[in-house]
Amino acid sequence: MTISVGILGATGYTGAELVRLLHQHPGAGITFCSSRQYNGKHISEVLEFLKGSVDIVLEDFDAAAIRRRCDVVFSCLPHGASMEFIARIIDAVKVVDLSADFRIRDLAVYREWYQEHTSPELLPEAVYGLAEVYRDEIRNARLVANPGCYPTSVLLPLIPLLKAGLIEKTDIIVDSKSGVSGAGRGLSLKTHICESGESFSAYKVGRSHRHIPEIEQELSRAAGTDIAIEFTPHLIPISRGMLSTIYVTAAADEDVLKGCLKDFYGKSPFVRVIDGLPATKDVRGTNRCLMTVVKNRSSRRATLVSVIDNLTKGASGQALQCMNLMFGLDEACGLDSVPLFP
Amino acid sequence: MTISVGILGATGYTGAELVRLLHQHPGAGITFCSSRQYNGKHISEVLEFLKGSVDIVLEDFDAAAIRRRCDVVFSCLPHGASMEFIARIIDAVKVVDLSADFRIRDLAVYREWYQEHTSPELLPEAVYGLAEVYRDEIRNARLVANPGCYPTSVLLPLIPLLKAGLIEKTDIIVDSKSGVSGAGRGLSLKTHICESGESFSAYKVGRSHRHIPEIEQELSRAAGTDIAIEFTPHLIPISRGMLSTIYVTAAADEDVLKGCLKDFYGKSPFVRVIDGLPATKDVRGTNRCLMTVVKNRSSRRATLVSVIDNLTKGASGQALQCMNLMFGLDEACGLDSVPLFP
Amino acid sequence: MTISVGILGATGYTGAELVRLLHQHPGAGITFCSSRQYNGKHISEVLEFLKGSVDIVLEDFDAAAIRRRCDVVFSCLPHGASMEFIARIIDAVKVVDLSADFRIRDLAVYREWYQEHTSPELLPEAVYGLAEVYRDEIRNARLVANPGCYPTSVLLPLIPLLKAGLIEKTDIIVDSKSGVSGAGRGLSLKTHICESGESFSAYKVGRSHRHIPEIEQELSRAAGTDIAIEFTPHLIPISRGMLSTIYVTAAADEDVLKGCLKDFYGKSPFVRVIDGLPATKDVRGTNRCLMTVVKNRSSRRATLVSVIDNLTKGASGQALQCMNLMFGLDEACGLDSVPLFP
Amino acid sequence: MTISVGILGATGYTGAELVRLLHQHPGAGITFCSSRQYNGKHISEVLEFLKGSVDIVLEDFDAAAIRRRCDVVFSCLPHGASMEFIARIIDAVKVVDLSADFRIRDLAVYREWYQEHTSPELLPEAVYGLAEVYRDEIRNARLVANPGCYPTSVLLPLIPLLKAGLIEKTDIIVDSKSGVSGAGRGLSLKTHICESGESFSAYKVGRSHRHIPEIEQELSRAAGTDIAIEFTPHLIPISRGMLSTIYVTAAADEDVLKGCLKDFYGKSPFVRVIDGLPATKDVRGTNRCLMTVVKNRSSRRATLVSVIDNLTKGASGQALQCMNLMFGLDEACGLDSVPLFP
Repeated sequence: MTISVGILGATGYTGAELVRLLHQHPGAGITFCSSRQYNGKHISEVLEFLKGSVDIVLEDFDAAAIRRRCDVVFSCLPHGASMEFIARIIDAVKVVDLSADFRIRDLAVYREWYQEHTSPELLPEAVYGLAEVYRDEIRNARLVANPGCYPTSVLLPLIPLLKAGLIEKTDIIVDSKSGVSGAGRGLSLKTHICESGESFSAYKVGRSHRHIPEIEQELSRAAGTDIAIEFTPHLIPISRGMLSTIYVTAAADEDVLKGCLKDFYGKSPFVRVIDGLPATKDVRGTNRCLMTVVKNRSSRRATLVSVIDNLTKGASGQALQCMNLMFGLDEACGLDSVPLFP
Repeated sequence: MTISVGILGATGYTGAELVRLLHQHPGAGITFCSSRQYNGKHISEVLEFLKGSVDIVLEDFDAAAIRRRCDVVFSCLPHGASMEFIARIIDAVKVVDLSADFRIRDLAVYREWYQEHTSPELLPEAVYGLAEVYRDEIRNARLVANPGCYPTSVLLPLIPLLKAGLIEKTDIIVDSKSGVSGAGRGLSLKTHICESGESFSAYKVGRSHRHIPEIEQELSRAAGTDIAIEFTPHLIPISRGMLSTIYVTAAADEDVLKGCLKDFYGKSPFVRVIDGLPATKDVRGTNRCLMTVVKNRSSRRATLVSVIDNLTKGASGQALQCMNLMFGLDEACGLDSVPLFP
Repeated sequence: MTISVGILGATGYTGAELVRLLHQHPGAGITFCSSRQYNGKHISEVLEFLKGSVDIVLEDFDAAAIRRRCDVVFSCLPHGASMEFIARIIDAVKVVDLSADFRIRDLAVYREWYQEHTSPELLPEAVYGLAEVYRDEIRNARLVANPGCYPTSVLLPLIPLLKAGLIEKTDIIVDSKSGVSGAGRGLSLKTHICESGESFSAYKVGRSHRHIPEIEQELSRAAGTDIAIEFTPHLIPISRGMLSTIYVTAAADEDVLKGCLKDFYGKSPFVRVIDGLPATKDVRGTNRCLMTVVKNRSSRRATLVSVIDNLTKGASGQALQCMNLMFGLDEACGLDSVPLFP
Repeated sequence: MTISVGILGATGYTGAELVRLLHQHPGAGITFCSSRQYNGKHISEVLEFLKGSVDIVLEDFDAAAIRRRCDVVFSCLPHGASMEFIARIIDAVKVVDLSADFRIRDLAVYREWYQEHTSPELLPEAVYGLAEVYRDEIRNARLVANPGCYPTSVLLPLIPLLKAGLIEKTDIIVDSKSGVSGAGRGLSLKTHICESGESFSAYKVGRSHRHIPEIEQELSRAAGTDIAIEFTPHLIPISRGMLSTIYVTAAADEDVLKGCLKDFYGKSPFVRVIDGLPATKDVRGTNRCLMTVVKNRSSRRATLVSVIDNLTKGASGQALQCMNLMFGLDEACGLDSVPLFP
């Protein structure tokens, strides 16, 4: 079987990462790529690194062509646009949406943080694509809401501990750091190498980053009660990589906490609970998540540290992991490369 | 008046930064530089960027020469070595010690985190060189213990709020990020550009970094009661720059918190409380500290963000600021440059 | 005496560098700054690193105000615009033009590489601002054409050797590398940190970069005959720094070549002929040029290597050096800082 | 068929790159890894990015074990050591030597630039592993001398043009730039991120880099006459990537030159002659070489630009390409990934 794949918005960083990963996937091939801006061009004219390897013509969105040519569609469109286009093809193809449109289950919350939802009827069936947590639901899903990058790096270490009741549900503090590719391929002084290079900064401090409601929703589901967090994102002057440092309160010892995580992820091919401390380079370009937990000897606080590649496990790699599940393939199919080192 | 300056251990990063800053100081000149490793060489052979600008011969430590030629000595030696050499000259010259040897007031705490103290008799007179807090004491000091880089970035935003009683004394969480120059000029795989470049990592997670007791000592003095913190340092793949994100609990509004900081630092030339969010590049190569505070609208938490250059305000610039005070000069003398941009 | 300085186009990288350098200049102060885009804002709103240090209001171009308030004006406007505005104030103030408008002496050449010249009547009096070569002319000039960054790095090592007749006038090959700030503060995928970071590339290969006619004009003047060069610029993934590797043919020994350079620059405070090999970090943020020459033992070729900071000696620092000369100050006044290290 | 692979010196950068590439090779598996320094440890303790993916125990060199367990051995040992160990196994296994030991065919030249050769009897059968040029010889080789990184980037664009007689054989000037991983994993101030980051420099200027005799040997073979070049290497502050700018003299037009290159590489899967200008990021982590040629409209010079990843096509990828040929596999087997972008 070869899965026929369509990509909406193929020329941004998550689209490009999908193309890169699909190129090395043994069971899927790209049959449709849309781009409003570069409609009619070869994708390798826009993403030059694909020259000689991938060369499909970029088209305008075309529901009929998609129905005819695709088994599954990945939407890399911005929120708002994404749900509109998905609504026009979801009856015919499976969809993994990399935007935020189907991540928030409460319409009022979505409206508060994003905008009015235009396809609320699809929301009930959307499955949150955190494969390590919702593996079975994803297997049977028609519409998967691929998690955000920050949520992925935060939820993976926290959910098992909350489910096990090993950490308190209050006063969870999340300090996250992301490479600049998370800001996308659009132009801004913030991504100019002379302004963001050799610098480090926080942004959206306080309760202002849109990934907060997504994280809180999923933590609350895991805990069985409402959870609110503190969250501060930062910008690292590198392209790829995300590290979250998470402060929790726990009565249990470090061994118990680590054991809980190891048990939870024992059969997950991409999540590894390590004894040392992870660095973002350890996961660069891969679908891995490395994590650890350290207990403060003299307080009730424990510190969780997790790393992912924001474009792979934090976006396109995770989307492919979901596709694998949706089509009955091995979860890790085409995703087992080791990081580029050095 | 020209102040005659000696530097012990002049060829590491803090020594080199002292030489750079003294070169542009109108009231001080270097008259003695020691280096065990490069004894006999011209400093510009070891620090090539000084060629054509500064060219003093590196000598072995020589107490007699120092007494004869220096008004003040900066020690950039490692802890342990620093106190031994300082004890041999402190009767004749003023000293600013950039090591940790005279920062910790409790001998037992020093012993636990560092080693046995060899000059405990000097400890009572040592003044902690955080100029914005101990300005008057520094003016009259013979021996100044220059603060560590992490402590500087953490204490400056926290001390005014603790003194004013505006934040709770428990559950202060400090998430700090430092450029690699903080690790010094020694060789290690961790500072190899191929290993630390394009990566981000946490280190010494849990209660293990030696700056913790220093931070807690000074917070406790400000609060009038024992304070314990959580502290996680991280490595940013840049040379210079330090950002601390600090989570506190406060009943007061953002305006009140910010007003408290603005009042406290109203007459301090280097500390600025800003309305936006600071980036490390805004202070690169300068003695500045920029900070802000953001209150979470829906919780009792507030987030403090501060940035310094770890080698300037976090080390050598702050040491010169202390020297200025010790010799009756304007605090900012020779330290008013703007950052290199871009 | 305090020189009153105006800056046209103050918010780009060369304008910002002028402001930074003027802040530490003891004999000059900024009295006028224009910006079409940010007209009416404080300069520190646009260039945040200036906050607390420089805070002048940006104005629209105003010839009357400039006449009233300025002794000298630096134009950081793009070519074309620059000459138009300069023509309206040159009768009242001295001008250093950082654009290319008055660098090319031959109107036909200017037209071929740039556009029609709108102020040809000013061209005869314009002095090429390479201070080490045209020091006396600059002292008496009303209008100085500040050299381009690539030309500065190429002309300084070549002119003495050509004047001395020590190298052949044919087959000079120039391979230059520049930090990204040379591309300016404008937005483009080429300056996006994710696209230009961790990469290296050549651009404008072949006879296509506009600095070629400028370099050839000045080499020809030095040689007394027409000189044509090969020139390839490259982009280094750093903010600041420029290195030129220049291949020449020489019968003379290395010592003779180096001696010629040392003699020529013996009294120039910013140019240093070194025995090792220069790195761009050795000049970062300074007005220095370091250079060396290595003779191939088994061929007639010699290799020259020069480094400058493209924004300082390659632009704004050199412009201030010219201002110093135009106003009878010491050439190095306000420009003697050492580089930020590390 | 699965090829059993041994690696000598597996923990440096070229060894690590071999392990990474072999992990994704469908027809080869690692059965032996030597490391003197880390003998007895798991490879993933030394190269942490391999954890969870590759976990072989590092052994001391063991000729008997190699004979028993390996079909082919890659030597990543330093020159000198490499030939000694290879001599002890070459009768039993095929060898690809990544050191310089078997690249130089003239013993006197090897002695002049390296040291006394200890296995001259093997030299006649060693095949220079530039697959695009010596494909047939490599297919039948027992011992392949894998080309150096600089030579690969220089020879690929030059050899076709020399063979075709389209460029002159004199005055070839090569200006090359390499990422820091080319300096290896050893510790030195030159690879300290604070010293090599945000900087650019030339090194071994003049006739001093050991890749010069290797390049000249192969150019001379292609031209049928002795060729001498000028060569200057530079250090780019990135991990991976190499760009060579090569100045040649040609009577032919750009189209003819480019056509020659396109014809020569028409059937080579990794070399692509492009119309734009290549950047090192276009080949990062891949076995590709991109190149172009631009003719100066007004002189007889043409400029060649080539890019490779110094660790892949410049070392370990090329070695695997040779292995593929030596074992009758498709040349590109396991080497067709696209670069990590961004």
